[in-house]
Amino acid sequence: MRISLNRRSVTPHSAAMRLALASAVALACPASGQTPPTLVSPEIGVDRAVTFRLWAPSASAVELSGNWMGARPPAPLAKGADGVWTVTIPPLEPNIYSYGFIVEGIRTADPSCRCTFASAGRFVDSVLRIPGDTPRAWEAQNSPAGTLHHERFRSARQQRTRQFVVYTPPGYEPAGTRRYPVLVLLPGTPGDENDWTSGGGFAEVMFDNLIARGEMVPMFVVMHASDALDRPGGRRSDQNLQEFEVILVDEVLPLLRARYRVDPQPESWAIAGLSLGGEFGMHVGLKHPEIFRSIGSLSGSLVQNSFDSRFVPWFTTPEARRGAYSLIWLGCGSEDVFLDGTKAFAARLEAAGIKHVFRQLNGPHSLAVARLELAELLPLLFKPPAAPRR
Amino acid sequence: MRISLNRRSVTPHSAAMRLALASAVALACPASGQTPPTLVSPEIGVDRAVTFRLWAPSASAVELSGNWMGARPPAPLAKGADGVWTVTIPPLEPNIYSYGFIVEGIRTADPSCRCTFASAGRFVDSVLRIPGDTPRAWEAQNSPAGTLHHERFRSARQQRTRQFVVYTPPGYEPAGTRRYPVLVLLPGTPGDENDWTSGGGFAEVMFDNLIARGEMVPMFVVMHASDALDRPGGRRSDQNLQEFEVILVDEVLPLLRARYRVDPQPESWAIAGLSLGGEFGMHVGLKHPEIFRSIGSLSGSLVQNSFDSRFVPWFTTPEARRGAYSLIWLGCGSEDVFLDGTKAFAARLEAAGIKHVFRQLNGPHSLAVARLELAELLPLLFKPPAAPRR
Repeated sequence: MRISLNRRSVTPHSAAMRLALASAVALACPASGQTPPTLVSPEIGVDRAVTFRLWAPSASAVELSGNWMGARPPAPLAKGADGVWTVTIPPLEPNIYSYGFIVEGIRTADPSCRCTFASAGRFVDSVLRIPGDTPRAWEAQNSPAGTLHHERFRSARQQRTRQFVVYTPPGYEPAGTRRYPVLVLLPGTPGDENDWTSGGGFAEVMFDNLIARGEMVPMFVVMHASDALDRPGGRRSDQNLQEFEVILVDEVLPLLRARYRVDPQPESWAIAGLSLGGEFGMHVGLKHPEIFRSIGSLSGSLVQNSFDSRFVPWFTTPEARRGAYSLIWLGCGSEDVFLDGTKAFAARLEAAGIKHVFRQLNGPHSLAVARLELAELLPLLFKPPAAPRR
Repeated sequence: MRISLNRRSVTPHSAAMRLALASAVALACPASGQTPPTLVSPEIGVDRAVTFRLWAPSASAVELSGNWMGARPPAPLAKGADGVWTVTIPPLEPNIYSYGFIVEGIRTADPSCRCTFASAGRFVDSVLRIPGDTPRAWEAQNSPAGTLHHERFRSARQQRTRQFVVYTPPGYEPAGTRRYPVLVLLPGTPGDENDWTSGGGFAEVMFDNLIARGEMVPMFVVMHASDALDRPGGRRSDQNLQEFEVILVDEVLPLLRARYRVDPQPESWAIAGLSLGGEFGMHVGLKHPEIFRSIGSLSGSLVQNSFDSRFVPWFTTPEARRGAYSLIWLGCGSEDVFLDGTKAFAARLEAAGIKHVFRQLNGPHSLAVARLELAELLPLLFKPPAAPRR
């Protein structure tokens, strides 16, 4: 609700509406009295090349930054005589990406897109959806929709309010009797319980689609922050990992069991996460086979100097874990900073005789690549292994 | 999840973390290689004066814009030798406000606050919480927390996915038998189903508190966009109002009744809204006494040239509405552009003999003032009128 009034002499509601509209474009609109043009941005070509446009007549430099770029520098836009800056980038693979402009050193969302979202209380991005020739799992396809439940509770340990989000599949009847398997799905850091949905993941659409196609077992998906202490600089610390484990196992999961009709069998529980959530989820999953029997690392922050200490019990005495898990799944992007670490972790599992799957996808350390990994992981969960071929 | 890599030679996870941190401050950090200082912003003094700070060493002008300002112009910040811009504003009344900086004509959130939120897919703001001497209804007080359910459905009328949010009070047991009253709570425009919660309203905390204090009847609160067509320029049009009415009455409410254990009696149904939602809610509420028996306009966009045509049936033949409503509540801010219209509307109700309440609060047309109005309205809903004093 953006209505404000600059001049009392004009008709109230039209002034209010005009100002409301003006504020929508103020992002890139110098206070010069000029009227910004209506732009199409982003514009996706038939070849999936993408053109970005920003009206910034008084800016001296505008750059494009997107999460498909990895280690590459931001792309400069060129200024036209009309004050509109433009850049066209080469074709992108189908996915949902996030991007922003850097204007005079200030990062800003694309005011033409109406696709601005915030995450973790500090990041602001625009959404870029590159469709496939045939609809991909994450594209809206009018599948029956599940519900996202935003739960809050008072953490006895932290003496503060914490949040988690639960996806329930379409057809879940709270008053029914059917019990559902559970996937705990964790974000990176900084990040929170919304990252996989409104914070850029938009994964609920993928859940809907895969369930509708019969490719995913109808399940609850529980989303909670990986970074339980939220102290800058200590995100990958042992203290943060321990805090996360206690909050998840002793506080969140009991509430989940009380409020949702979960299947209590450990075979029906999985934990997976992105980046820090991949590492923390792997740790908690391997520590608690009495809770989880499937684990997924989605571009997890697996680096040798931490897993050599954190995971040592399961590598030195691996017997108890050798047959315990239905699935241990490791995915990583080809340009990901954690690719070597993930490969090294897979080698440790191999040496310990712990069954696992390793998948390398194209791309950098990003939520976009993790989305592809999640789309591969979900169909594998909670299904009996295929019978061996005769 | 913001991790990316600029240099392959550094330790992967520390580089990733450093870059993750760097991106958190990039908003106000020119690409000059300088390290931004750690700032406290906003800083709230004991007298509730507020100091804002932004590090922008290469900027030539920085202004503060906040939703408490109404028709007043943005406040300029002064630049210090250290590149930090500062302004201190006079004391504010306790409330939750939103604000941002305008740097070189570009509006941006406060990077020091970690309180950035987006709304309606296009607006980005920071949150400013001014506490009261005693906790106000909207301040976190560890009350038992309700749940926010994000529902999606395929609109048969619009052939697209629409969303609504349902607050269920603490203690709501989906498998129980108790039925609850319903408040339909609408946002302004541009706005969506999240405006009253994560989009700047944060009203779920107020619901929790008032219910815990026994000052609000435990109820479902249903939030849906007021602007059903979402066509720029046509937000206050008759077409948009008609579309809103059909979507709400024929699509959202039947789903609500099917999915939540609502009390079917019209005495247990209310509709209220902010700005456009106040006007549209008033229209739908007066048109449908068979559904709603309580109506609230929270700084509603009531202007004479539209309500003289839209509401004419109820003013010319008011008999059927005279005794129909338990509550018609009109609130407006003293600096609000819609104050005169709201007063005129109250006069029409008065002339028609339709019982109502009018309340004028201090402040401009803003979600902050509407929050104060909502805090007054909620305790009045679904309660039998007090017995007359002897």
